[in-house]
Amino acid sequence: MTRHRCRAREVGIETGLLSPGPLNAITDVAGVRVGHVTLIEGDSVRTGVTAVLPHDGNLFQEKVIAAVHTLNGYGKAMGFEQVREVGTLETPLLLCSTLDVGRVADAVVRWMLEQNPALGRQAGTVSPLVAECFDGYLNDARTPTVQWEQVWAAIENAQAGPVAEGNVGAGTGMSGFEFKGGIGTSSRRLDEEHGGFSVGALVCLNCGRRQQLLIQGVPVGRALADWPGDPTPDGGSIIMVLATDAPLEARQLGRLARRAPLGLARTGAVASHRSGDFVIAFSTAQRIPTIPVGVQGLAPRVQGLAPRAQGPAPLLTHTLTVLAEDCEALNWLFQAAIEATEEAIINALCMAETMLGREGHVRYALPLDRVVELLQMHGRIGARPTSGR
Amino acid sequence: MTRHRCRAREVGIETGLLSPGPLNAITDVAGVRVGHVTLIEGDSVRTGVTAVLPHDGNLFQEKVIAAVHTLNGYGKAMGFEQVREVGTLETPLLLCSTLDVGRVADAVVRWMLEQNPALGRQAGTVSPLVAECFDGYLNDARTPTVQWEQVWAAIENAQAGPVAEGNVGAGTGMSGFEFKGGIGTSSRRLDEEHGGFSVGALVCLNCGRRQQLLIQGVPVGRALADWPGDPTPDGGSIIMVLATDAPLEARQLGRLARRAPLGLARTGAVASHRSGDFVIAFSTAQRIPTIPVGVQGLAPRVQGLAPRAQGPAPLLTHTLTVLAEDCEALNWLFQAAIEATEEAIINALCMAETMLGREGHVRYALPLDRVVELLQMHGRIGARPTSGR
Amino acid sequence: MTRHRCRAREVGIETGLLSPGPLNAITDVAGVRVGHVTLIEGDSVRTGVTAVLPHDGNLFQEKVIAAVHTLNGYGKAMGFEQVREVGTLETPLLLCSTLDVGRVADAVVRWMLEQNPALGRQAGTVSPLVAECFDGYLNDARTPTVQWEQVWAAIENAQAGPVAEGNVGAGTGMSGFEFKGGIGTSSRRLDEEHGGFSVGALVCLNCGRRQQLLIQGVPVGRALADWPGDPTPDGGSIIMVLATDAPLEARQLGRLARRAPLGLARTGAVASHRSGDFVIAFSTAQRIPTIPVGVQGLAPRVQGLAPRAQGPAPLLTHTLTVLAEDCEALNWLFQAAIEATEEAIINALCMAETMLGREGHVRYALPLDRVVELLQMHGRIGARPTSGR
Amino acid sequence: MTRHRCRAREVGIETGLLSPGPLNAITDVAGVRVGHVTLIEGDSVRTGVTAVLPHDGNLFQEKVIAAVHTLNGYGKAMGFEQVREVGTLETPLLLCSTLDVGRVADAVVRWMLEQNPALGRQAGTVSPLVAECFDGYLNDARTPTVQWEQVWAAIENAQAGPVAEGNVGAGTGMSGFEFKGGIGTSSRRLDEEHGGFSVGALVCLNCGRRQQLLIQGVPVGRALADWPGDPTPDGGSIIMVLATDAPLEARQLGRLARRAPLGLARTGAVASHRSGDFVIAFSTAQRIPTIPVGVQGLAPRVQGLAPRAQGPAPLLTHTLTVLAEDCEALNWLFQAAIEATEEAIINALCMAETMLGREGHVRYALPLDRVVELLQMHGRIGARPTSGR
Repeated sequence: MTRHRCRAREVGIETGLLSPGPLNAITDVAGVRVGHVTLIEGDSVRTGVTAVLPHDGNLFQEKVIAAVHTLNGYGKAMGFEQVREVGTLETPLLLCSTLDVGRVADAVVRWMLEQNPALGRQAGTVSPLVAECFDGYLNDARTPTVQWEQVWAAIENAQAGPVAEGNVGAGTGMSGFEFKGGIGTSSRRLDEEHGGFSVGALVCLNCGRRQQLLIQGVPVGRALADWPGDPTPDGGSIIMVLATDAPLEARQLGRLARRAPLGLARTGAVASHRSGDFVIAFSTAQRIPTIPVGVQGLAPRVQGLAPRAQGPAPLLTHTLTVLAEDCEALNWLFQAAIEATEEAIINALCMAETMLGREGHVRYALPLDRVVELLQMHGRIGARPTSGR
Repeated sequence: MTRHRCRAREVGIETGLLSPGPLNAITDVAGVRVGHVTLIEGDSVRTGVTAVLPHDGNLFQEKVIAAVHTLNGYGKAMGFEQVREVGTLETPLLLCSTLDVGRVADAVVRWMLEQNPALGRQAGTVSPLVAECFDGYLNDARTPTVQWEQVWAAIENAQAGPVAEGNVGAGTGMSGFEFKGGIGTSSRRLDEEHGGFSVGALVCLNCGRRQQLLIQGVPVGRALADWPGDPTPDGGSIIMVLATDAPLEARQLGRLARRAPLGLARTGAVASHRSGDFVIAFSTAQRIPTIPVGVQGLAPRVQGLAPRAQGPAPLLTHTLTVLAEDCEALNWLFQAAIEATEEAIINALCMAETMLGREGHVRYALPLDRVVELLQMHGRIGARPTSGR
Repeated sequence: MTRHRCRAREVGIETGLLSPGPLNAITDVAGVRVGHVTLIEGDSVRTGVTAVLPHDGNLFQEKVIAAVHTLNGYGKAMGFEQVREVGTLETPLLLCSTLDVGRVADAVVRWMLEQNPALGRQAGTVSPLVAECFDGYLNDARTPTVQWEQVWAAIENAQAGPVAEGNVGAGTGMSGFEFKGGIGTSSRRLDEEHGGFSVGALVCLNCGRRQQLLIQGVPVGRALADWPGDPTPDGGSIIMVLATDAPLEARQLGRLARRAPLGLARTGAVASHRSGDFVIAFSTAQRIPTIPVGVQGLAPRVQGLAPRAQGPAPLLTHTLTVLAEDCEALNWLFQAAIEATEEAIINALCMAETMLGREGHVRYALPLDRVVELLQMHGRIGARPTSGR
Repeated sequence: MTRHRCRAREVGIETGLLSPGPLNAITDVAGVRVGHVTLIEGDSVRTGVTAVLPHDGNLFQEKVIAAVHTLNGYGKAMGFEQVREVGTLETPLLLCSTLDVGRVADAVVRWMLEQNPALGRQAGTVSPLVAECFDGYLNDARTPTVQWEQVWAAIENAQAGPVAEGNVGAGTGMSGFEFKGGIGTSSRRLDEEHGGFSVGALVCLNCGRRQQLLIQGVPVGRALADWPGDPTPDGGSIIMVLATDAPLEARQLGRLARRAPLGLARTGAVASHRSGDFVIAFSTAQRIPTIPVGVQGLAPRVQGLAPRAQGPAPLLTHTLTVLAEDCEALNWLFQAAIEATEEAIINALCMAETMLGREGHVRYALPLDRVVELLQMHGRIGARPTSGR
């Protein structure tokens, strides 16, 4: 059994045309922070929660532009309707186990209320964004292990810098291609002539069947058909988070989000029937100030009716900086989103360790030695790396 | 202040071309049940929860075909992605206050786990469908009043027969057109030559500004501009539930769902920016049996690979009865959905009573006497009805 | 039979809360131009084509931000996919008879090629936006009457100022509520405190059944059930065009577009099964310059690969002015879109004259005298107007 | 320069887990027919048109269930709205050059009118489905070469059996990854235990940049960076057609359609900004009979109104056979759609020959010898094939 885990690039797996950022992580997008809470207890608690924060300000008061995309909607994500309508994210984004979505959403609401005393009163409502995968193969998913404390901790511990991968946070009990799955991340940086923008991806990988797995196009999964591991009865799921500092409007972020599945596809996944395959994309380039409810003048002078309210003169317009649509940079952002998503998935597999869980179920780590051997055989990586496996 | 409330038809307000079913309620669709839990306590608890159940069987094991539609997505509905993808509803549908969605969803999951011991294990996951409006004008929405007990009670108390309207269940603290809003219901029944199908609507009304309100096209809201009531600072929301016994497939139910906003429009509402205007539609005509996860053969014989699992021969196909698309009945179902939605909204206004809530806020009931007078003046209803106001 | 036709407001029909612009037409949005070509020949040619132009510049080189919405997609509109993706309109918008869409689209392409010599070569392709209704009850729709000359004439004759309504252009042979339908237009203007923006609507009305027709909520159609006119066997269609000078981004224009059906709903229409009910919305506030294909640097420096092309430094970003989303003005734009759409439909009915067409088919004009009488009876308009009917 | 072309499998390129059908073509789905008209004249006519017919009956009278999907909507496809709404295809599907869509659509309409004398009269309208790519690099796309004769010929010459690939039909002047692109096809067949269903794909390939190209995951494009060929200034496009004999309802076909991009992704394509990437999917398993307009009873007995029409008793419902959603077969249909799409793209590249076109532009054929060498080096195909390059 492989013991020491390392990231894909550390064993020589490089995919794509673009270079990663310095951390090769979603946190290469300045301001983005990630927090994990990992719960491993006894025989059957193998779960957790992961928070992604676009910036360290008050997200409700300074929203970021965002978009969502559903590749296969067999999932219990919450908050998608509002992002689709108004194109902003106003809370931390949380990832968790399927049956915990309600509790996690409630915890996010409580945290936002704490941060924003006027919320739920004059300032109106707040829309948490929560997405899930099902860790029930290893975790006792029926037991509500994650409570508000863990959610708050994930949010409050979120930090910039390197991101823990594999069996951490929401990824703790997840599977991928009938190996151990979990959290993975990666990034790409565009050349200066295309704006020098970064795109980061973070995935919670819980999908795929063994025989489907491709790494650099090599059918690694079929070659490892005899490696131990139960078949995945159900489809699994994957949540793909994209962050960028490129100044994209919501429609453009939707276009970016629709590229993440193309990265997923390169790993051999098919978005199976019972898979919840969702993408959330946001841009840190601009913050959208919230106009408190009720501040604006309420009604025009209707004939014969007095105006219903008279606030201060409303702020009618603001300016947005947006990427020139025909600019070549957009295509490279697409390329970056695809590559970062693919590599984040491979990183999740590379970093996750073998785990024993509920009812003696075992998810084995992707055997890095064997994978490296296979990729060398196929001329996809060079001399045998000397460390890290 | 009006005291005794009654439904729109009781004061002579009739809209549309089609006749209501015997109860003029969503429960005219056989099998549909509605349960309310109403929480009115002290100065500031004015909230509740409403459950709609398509049938009295095990919803997870016998799903119903369903569709959702979003007119304006500024809302926190949960469960929409899965209904869009697979076209079925597998839990009771719950309506509640905005900041309670997470807790209510969690309670539904707990109830489903209780009903289905294999859920969260072999039988996979479950997707609750929860929608909300914001009752924070009258209710202390920051305090998490609704807990799992109330949700379970709403589900378990759900019954066929007449449906309580106005200040009940999720509608308890809601506003409509700056009057008191809440729950309303109505139904339509097609002629036998068009299949004799029923369409029922149930709404949780929390949207609209005073001056917008139209009843039978009469600008009642403008005529009542001086009637007391604070302006609605925010947009409010409306949840529209449609049930039918017509055998519609999911795509057709989507078409039906997209007609509900046309009924809403006839009341003068505009689906304002901060309004969550959602439609959920389901058909009771057929039940879709669930194939337990893992029962089906898992993999075809791939060259060189043994099959991964060998279950019993899978059930490959089933037959659905669907309404002939070109059939005139479909247009009448559209008409029915529009009319029932419109009348459900008017019923909510007619049945809701004046309520005093948080911080001395008051939402006044729509003054039925004045409304009747106005409609008489406009020749829209006949001799003054002798009772009910 | 009524002879002299006039617009709704001329007989006293006023709906809504907002005031129209000076022309009460889509051309109240500065720069918008409308051109009609009307073809009435012999017994059975009753058709035409209508062009709407957002500005008088080169639309391909200076695109406008746009959005589309489909209420009921039983129609043959062309160009929707590209508007959805990139959020711009780059040609005149054309309305025509159903079976002519291909020919009209081809004519628009030819016209654009003429205007833009580099199109179809270095400058890439162009996406015409064409929408249709079926005038086959009065018109011999099988005969391809409309050819490129008529399309070019409609585009080139387009002008600002008052817009001809009723039996003109694409509306020539159309029906509405089993009366004579066709082209109608209207507008609304917001107060200065909400930006003083204008919203204009232009419809090609070809939908609805007699008994559904509501004017100001009064069931005029049922009252005129005995007025002559064949039932509409099929659903008909309606194309709704919205123009505004408010600085809306494409996502916001999509929201505006989704309000037009709420105006349609107030006339009693249900968007029947075989109806193509489409909305196209655009903003004249900003022009999006096109970057010619190939001007931008083509590729970042990929490791080991020379850049594929070296153009001048690309224009990476531009600024957009966008309406502040939380601003009250957005809600009034919604209100304006609904009201202008409703009134444009009523204007089409009021202005269209009785027409005899193919095989002796007759579509009778909406009898304005009777309508005024009915609305007076219902207290919806004042003293009998003294002219115009 | 390579001379003799052959299909991917003939040189040993095999991808995926499933086996192709006997023809490895979309025509493995029984009843499906394909027709090409290829126009190569003088220096600059390099274009054509391709027709795909689901069956050899009258498509208007016996529609097939269908769905569409847009990966990137920068394209001029026609007919998508109606397929989305009613879920059926009622004409042959035509592929062509971008600026020809209008003319091709018009020709399809003319052909349908010829076949259906009541169309455009009692039988209502017809909705052609046309999609395009831009062949303007090799072809003089500004000149309207394709006229109705060619469209009719493509439809009428359509046949079952082997499908010509490469520089034929709509593919004549297309490019792929800066090599010569065009038409490609492939198929997959499920095991009997999963129903023995077939899925066929046909693509018109016109997208991708050289350096993106992956074959079996091997970065063939980068290895061939020095192979001659101009960079693609614009994004290109790809149309992906999926046919199946599995009994899928429209919603399920939509799910199938959404998998085709995952096959595209495996070839390295990114769906660039100016790419029109569309999928059309249909099932031949069932034919949906059309109810002629006006045959059905028109109106229910409305109080006080006589029914508007009295036809024979309408056909109210019909039965559909649908694949059991939870059945494992659905996942294998997804796998099949992905694999067939990927291989159809590779086939297009393998079969297209070098072409000289407009203004001396040359698109070079993918050099099969070099590709085989590269794949052998990477251990992806076995002993060097002895023929076919």
